[in-house]
Amino acid sequence: MTARVILGRIMSSLGGKPRGTRRAERLVGLLRTLISERGEATGAVLARRAVALYRGLDAEGRAHLFDKLAHEFSPDPVAVLQAAVAYHSRPDAGSLAVLQRVTEPPRQEVFRRMNMAPGGTATLLELRRELLAAQAASPQLAAVDHDLAHLLQSWFNRGFLELRRIDWNTPASILEKLITYEAVHRIHGFPDLKRRLERDRRCLAFFHPALPDEPLIFVEVALLDEVPHEVAPILEMESAVADPRKARCAVFYSITSCQAGLKGVSFGNFLIKQVAEDLHAELPGIKVFATLSPVPGLRHWVGKAAPALAANADSDLAARRPELERLAASYLTQAWSEGASLDPVARFHLGNGARLERINWMADPSPRGIAQSFGIMVNYVYDLGDVERNHEEYVKRHRVVSSTVVDKLAREAALLVESGARAPISSP
Amino acid sequence: MTARVILGRIMSSLGGKPRGTRRAERLVGLLRTLISERGEATGAVLARRAVALYRGLDAEGRAHLFDKLAHEFSPDPVAVLQAAVAYHSRPDAGSLAVLQRVTEPPRQEVFRRMNMAPGGTATLLELRRELLAAQAASPQLAAVDHDLAHLLQSWFNRGFLELRRIDWNTPASILEKLITYEAVHRIHGFPDLKRRLERDRRCLAFFHPALPDEPLIFVEVALLDEVPHEVAPILEMESAVADPRKARCAVFYSITSCQAGLKGVSFGNFLIKQVAEDLHAELPGIKVFATLSPVPGLRHWVGKAAPALAANADSDLAARRPELERLAASYLTQAWSEGASLDPVARFHLGNGARLERINWMADPSPRGIAQSFGIMVNYVYDLGDVERNHEEYVKRHRVVSSTVVDKLAREAALLVESGARAPISSP
Amino acid sequence: MTARVILGRIMSSLGGKPRGTRRAERLVGLLRTLISERGEATGAVLARRAVALYRGLDAEGRAHLFDKLAHEFSPDPVAVLQAAVAYHSRPDAGSLAVLQRVTEPPRQEVFRRMNMAPGGTATLLELRRELLAAQAASPQLAAVDHDLAHLLQSWFNRGFLELRRIDWNTPASILEKLITYEAVHRIHGFPDLKRRLERDRRCLAFFHPALPDEPLIFVEVALLDEVPHEVAPILEMESAVADPRKARCAVFYSITSCQAGLKGVSFGNFLIKQVAEDLHAELPGIKVFATLSPVPGLRHWVGKAAPALAANADSDLAARRPELERLAASYLTQAWSEGASLDPVARFHLGNGARLERINWMADPSPRGIAQSFGIMVNYVYDLGDVERNHEEYVKRHRVVSSTVVDKLAREAALLVESGARAPISSP
Amino acid sequence: MTARVILGRIMSSLGGKPRGTRRAERLVGLLRTLISERGEATGAVLARRAVALYRGLDAEGRAHLFDKLAHEFSPDPVAVLQAAVAYHSRPDAGSLAVLQRVTEPPRQEVFRRMNMAPGGTATLLELRRELLAAQAASPQLAAVDHDLAHLLQSWFNRGFLELRRIDWNTPASILEKLITYEAVHRIHGFPDLKRRLERDRRCLAFFHPALPDEPLIFVEVALLDEVPHEVAPILEMESAVADPRKARCAVFYSITSCQAGLKGVSFGNFLIKQVAEDLHAELPGIKVFATLSPVPGLRHWVGKAAPALAANADSDLAARRPELERLAASYLTQAWSEGASLDPVARFHLGNGARLERINWMADPSPRGIAQSFGIMVNYVYDLGDVERNHEEYVKRHRVVSSTVVDKLAREAALLVESGARAPISSP
Repeated sequence: MTARVILGRIMSSLGGKPRGTRRAERLVGLLRTLISERGEATGAVLARRAVALYRGLDAEGRAHLFDKLAHEFSPDPVAVLQAAVAYHSRPDAGSLAVLQRVTEPPRQEVFRRMNMAPGGTATLLELRRELLAAQAASPQLAAVDHDLAHLLQSWFNRGFLELRRIDWNTPASILEKLITYEAVHRIHGFPDLKRRLERDRRCLAFFHPALPDEPLIFVEVALLDEVPHEVAPILEMESAVADPRKARCAVFYSITSCQAGLKGVSFGNFLIKQVAEDLHAELPGIKVFATLSPVPGLRHWVGKAAPALAANADSDLAARRPELERLAASYLTQAWSEGASLDPVARFHLGNGARLERINWMADPSPRGIAQSFGIMVNYVYDLGDVERNHEEYVKRHRVVSSTVVDKLAREAALLVESGARAPISSP
Repeated sequence: MTARVILGRIMSSLGGKPRGTRRAERLVGLLRTLISERGEATGAVLARRAVALYRGLDAEGRAHLFDKLAHEFSPDPVAVLQAAVAYHSRPDAGSLAVLQRVTEPPRQEVFRRMNMAPGGTATLLELRRELLAAQAASPQLAAVDHDLAHLLQSWFNRGFLELRRIDWNTPASILEKLITYEAVHRIHGFPDLKRRLERDRRCLAFFHPALPDEPLIFVEVALLDEVPHEVAPILEMESAVADPRKARCAVFYSITSCQAGLKGVSFGNFLIKQVAEDLHAELPGIKVFATLSPVPGLRHWVGKAAPALAANADSDLAARRPELERLAASYLTQAWSEGASLDPVARFHLGNGARLERINWMADPSPRGIAQSFGIMVNYVYDLGDVERNHEEYVKRHRVVSSTVVDKLAREAALLVESGARAPISSP
Repeated sequence: MTARVILGRIMSSLGGKPRGTRRAERLVGLLRTLISERGEATGAVLARRAVALYRGLDAEGRAHLFDKLAHEFSPDPVAVLQAAVAYHSRPDAGSLAVLQRVTEPPRQEVFRRMNMAPGGTATLLELRRELLAAQAASPQLAAVDHDLAHLLQSWFNRGFLELRRIDWNTPASILEKLITYEAVHRIHGFPDLKRRLERDRRCLAFFHPALPDEPLIFVEVALLDEVPHEVAPILEMESAVADPRKARCAVFYSITSCQAGLKGVSFGNFLIKQVAEDLHAELPGIKVFATLSPVPGLRHWVGKAAPALAANADSDLAARRPELERLAASYLTQAWSEGASLDPVARFHLGNGARLERINWMADPSPRGIAQSFGIMVNYVYDLGDVERNHEEYVKRHRVVSSTVVDKLAREAALLVESGARAPISSP
Repeated sequence: MTARVILGRIMSSLGGKPRGTRRAERLVGLLRTLISERGEATGAVLARRAVALYRGLDAEGRAHLFDKLAHEFSPDPVAVLQAAVAYHSRPDAGSLAVLQRVTEPPRQEVFRRMNMAPGGTATLLELRRELLAAQAASPQLAAVDHDLAHLLQSWFNRGFLELRRIDWNTPASILEKLITYEAVHRIHGFPDLKRRLERDRRCLAFFHPALPDEPLIFVEVALLDEVPHEVAPILEMESAVADPRKARCAVFYSITSCQAGLKGVSFGNFLIKQVAEDLHAELPGIKVFATLSPVPGLRHWVGKAAPALAANADSDLAARRPELERLAASYLTQAWSEGASLDPVARFHLGNGARLERINWMADPSPRGIAQSFGIMVNYVYDLGDVERNHEEYVKRHRVVSSTVVDKLAREAALLVESGARAPISSP
């Protein structure tokens, strides 16, 4: 019985279903064949068909497919229980192999098979993007996402990634993607990007061999004389280009994850440290590796921790500087949620082992900067020798390593936080 | 027994541990950290250390490590049972996630972490090679191997492989590896290989981006006028080079898996079909895709199926041709083991959906050819349109699709097989 | 008059030489050494110094250098005459070798030696650009230019050029140069260029290996259904992208020489024909290779040939269409200068063997188009089989091969050209 | 006399021309068109035909072509004389341009046009190789060779060459060429070559972009502890590979020009110095750049300078060491021919500015070494700071810069050279 015949039978069994659903049913039938023994000899052909069918699905079809993946391609609870009992009574290689086989959801093999087609990896990233979107309305899809995320985490292992420098000799098609993806400080067209790629700047990205034209994550670095207090001079398109060999400080001023389909698969830690190591080797004059980072959750937190202050801050922002700097220090060092910093950017850098170095007033006076954090930005410092210790302090003792200046500000903030505020605001 | 081994024994008898074991212990400790939360911030550094430590292990150290991986980095049977019960009573995304977490052996994360180091993938292949060697004496290592094989199967997914043509413009370092690895028809130095890379020959290999200089598997193809009856003209170094555009037949005359560490991770099926597809597109004159294949298990089987014949065959080989050709047809079409052909080469090609086309007498008169199969070789034909149907016949109905000539020979063989022989000889 | 110039004058009036001149003198001394026997062992070092010194020259220094090259590095008339007499009396290999040695200006060896330095070729192109600029005021520099042009013509031989397709995967640094250089239809930034690089457009350029990032000449091609009557639809950024396999006509709508230092070194003929050949092989559906070309000298010529018409044309352009089309046909087929078409674009395409196909009214209604040619553009057709014959007609018989429509228009134009106009207007 | 030649003669005596000549006549006609005005529009097509015709010529056809190139494509003596008189009476840009035009042999333009075809450059090198071979019998071809050599010297300017490192990752097709071309110390197949490409050896070659797979010249370098006394340890295939970072001395032990068609176009000087510079930058531990060089003309010279010694030397070579070392020193420092060292290898290195450092007894005990120079080899040292001064001493004062040890040996040799021997032996 050929694949064509199988498809025909599936189709006739469908009766009067909407077109998107019928296409999804055909795909589901194909996926069943793909992971059966029969799929072995013609795996490549079937995988291509599956990818083509998926790409042609409409929203309805995708919803149907995701639902099937969630329910039909799951482990059988009875088989799992039997295998677990056997492993418990005799935990050897044989019983473990059985346990692993029945515990692994068949949809993992579905995804591995689809990946074999040309363009398969890109299609799976697209599928996950759409799966995450659908998950909001259908929480049970979390199980499907868990499996796909697990596979992607394994496939996008750091050992398989390629670190590439992006500069003005990079193909325009890739530069265009950077302009589109940039999430921190908007890039206003090619001339703006060109300034960010001059020799006193660096831009580096991770790529995966299966997606050679798709940056996964990229970081923008400014090579400067000192740790900057504000972002505007870095972004200034008309600024003079400096000699990188005279720089003393590498500032990570923007870091962007590009692929929605890789949500939760984290590369940033590796990227920052690799770039720091490489810059250290290339330009020995650089002694400090720091960030200039936003504090996206500050205003929201102040609104809860010190509502009166928050309500009046904007009308007289300059006068509120002392209180707001102290609150920022307090927020970043003392506001926790589920064992990690409440602020997402702080969570990233402190989790990587960075030190909180300085609170910068009016570092980002853009509307967005004011709206998020009263214009405050902060510097985190990566001291490669201290990263492990800082990380342990953060993870094990829930203590943020910070400079004495920040420590002092945080202590002075105690009086500002209104009574009872701390507990509730640290929940997510 | 070397002095080193003696010293080791003395040391352990004295209560101390041998040096290799101490190094392995250090590595095990490092691996524990690597997969703990503490390993996150400094994962890259720790992975490098782990890889370096592994490379420095001696046999004793490796034995110690493998033993620890088998026992310490396994799933906890109690936790597994609890999770299985929970999933059984309430099979939702949450309980499944817990089940998957406790069922996955921690050594899988160990391997994923080691892979993050530069050269990590190559080290894991080396580790598996040594693990397979150690497994002979320590069967309990099968569980470790099962996990590593599972990961490698996923990482070396067809979608991540690159098909490269090998020719005389390929770097010498890669050509040298082909000479070393070739397992079917020995390559006698660079001039021999050069003939196999001329324009009426093709050599194609799969590579993985993490091992850019290491062929995983390669196939050698001769572009000929017709399906060949013997191998010598193909291997003849001094033969004239023909015009490939006039060829009507592509013959796969050698296929070699190169990496012992990838044992069981199968690429051959994909390789043959991809090469056939590509040749079909490039040279439309080629109408037949066939092999010229050894029959490695024939003599052994004849020794059991027709012992009297086997005992006297060599003294008068030419006269035995009719019987031996029939027995070959019988062996290849009717000798089964565990649902697959008994002959390993037949198992590969028939499992891929090929058809058994022809028995070739004295196709390989080399000592090895005589020793394996009385000099007999066979042609399997890949007819891309029939591959799926042939495969189904083979897998579902345990029937070998073969030409009428071969069918006839096989039927005529019935009288030759001594009574009672068939059943026992089909067991492995 | 700048302070620097004043200072220079004072210095020379005081018997000293200005700084630029002193630097040029040093360079001239170095060049003397460079072409002497002494320069052999250390040629590479001296060439680097010479290139560095040249790059540091100011306008005054360059003027001094050019003057020395014109006068000091010329052939010796006495030696030339002696060698010519000897060759005349005995024209053999020996006397010819002497003749060639004394006739070749030593500055040719100067340029060959400078070319040996890293960046030497680029520096010589820059030198020629500046030499051409200086030549306006100093006609005697023509001899220097003649030698450098001769060398460049030899070095930039078609056999050494690389034809590269430019598309959206080309490095931004090269795309930026195209935007800068484009001379026919201005490119308004990267998004405009992107449309010109889609799959229904082609852009190809010649490069020289010594200037790998510098396009020498590039052509833009639109793949269309038919020969176009106007340029606007081709340049429309928002137009839909068509399927190139359905195109029937390749239109060369822009061709730009990029390097001022290569003035007079012609690549356009080779480029157009190579691109036509390659497109013919890649897309067999394309049957017509044509241009959509400006007529830059039309209005100027009409102003002389039919001054009354020219004076009133703009006020009622639509009504003047019949006369202006006829005059255009007449201008392009009958106005000659020194054995070639008066119009520079006609001279290029007709000299290449193209046929004048059609006069297009209001094909370029931009201010520039109106100013040059009342908005008229024309199509030249490259019929590869007729190119040689057309070229001979043009070169030997001073006859423009054109379509019957154009011929008819040209004949009808006779009455429009005011008496006595033809002779004077055909001089340059 | 072959039948073919006889037939040819009969045919010409019968008034017909042999086939080779007819083909050559066709080519000559094509070349005339190629350099005429008519050739412009279709230059690329004609050039391809010319190259194809040339490749199909037999020896007779080539002889006919070369003869035509020598006589028909030469400058017109009358036109040359007129132009020389005009330039003499008025040496301006105009008269110089005319002079240059009539003095340049039209065959130069022939070669430039042929170069435009694909494969043109390679064909011209082949043409020159065959021209040089034919020149032995037809000295008048020297004029043709002079023109072609002049063009090639200009086209293969150092600024257009690419220095590439050759190692075990180089394509086998290029390595094979090195094995074929090696002229100093024969390479015995790929395994021998592999040892010469290990990390304590270097092999570098110049390539031209128009011949990307053809090395023009290559040098082999050994990175050693000290300047070597003999060549055998360097060539030893089984020797241990040393750490290049510990080397103190880079020894150029073989340098080979690969292209017969580039005879007289010298790259060796540039290659040695570039490699020395690059090694100096990469491996600062290397303090000495030296050669281990043959003395190919020594025995021949001794045969004339000290015939009695030469006649008996081989029977008792060890005993003759003192005299032979002194004679070698004398030969290399005092035997001149036409203003340059009589020994060709000495001429090359001393002309490049090297210093003669040491005479090594039994450095090359191979039959060839004994035959050429009684087994003697020498070290030349390249001290980059002294190269210019040494070169001047050599060129201007005809003095060889050598070590005090060599100087002493040379002085001691005076008594050994038989009276009257010096003058005659220094002529070529």
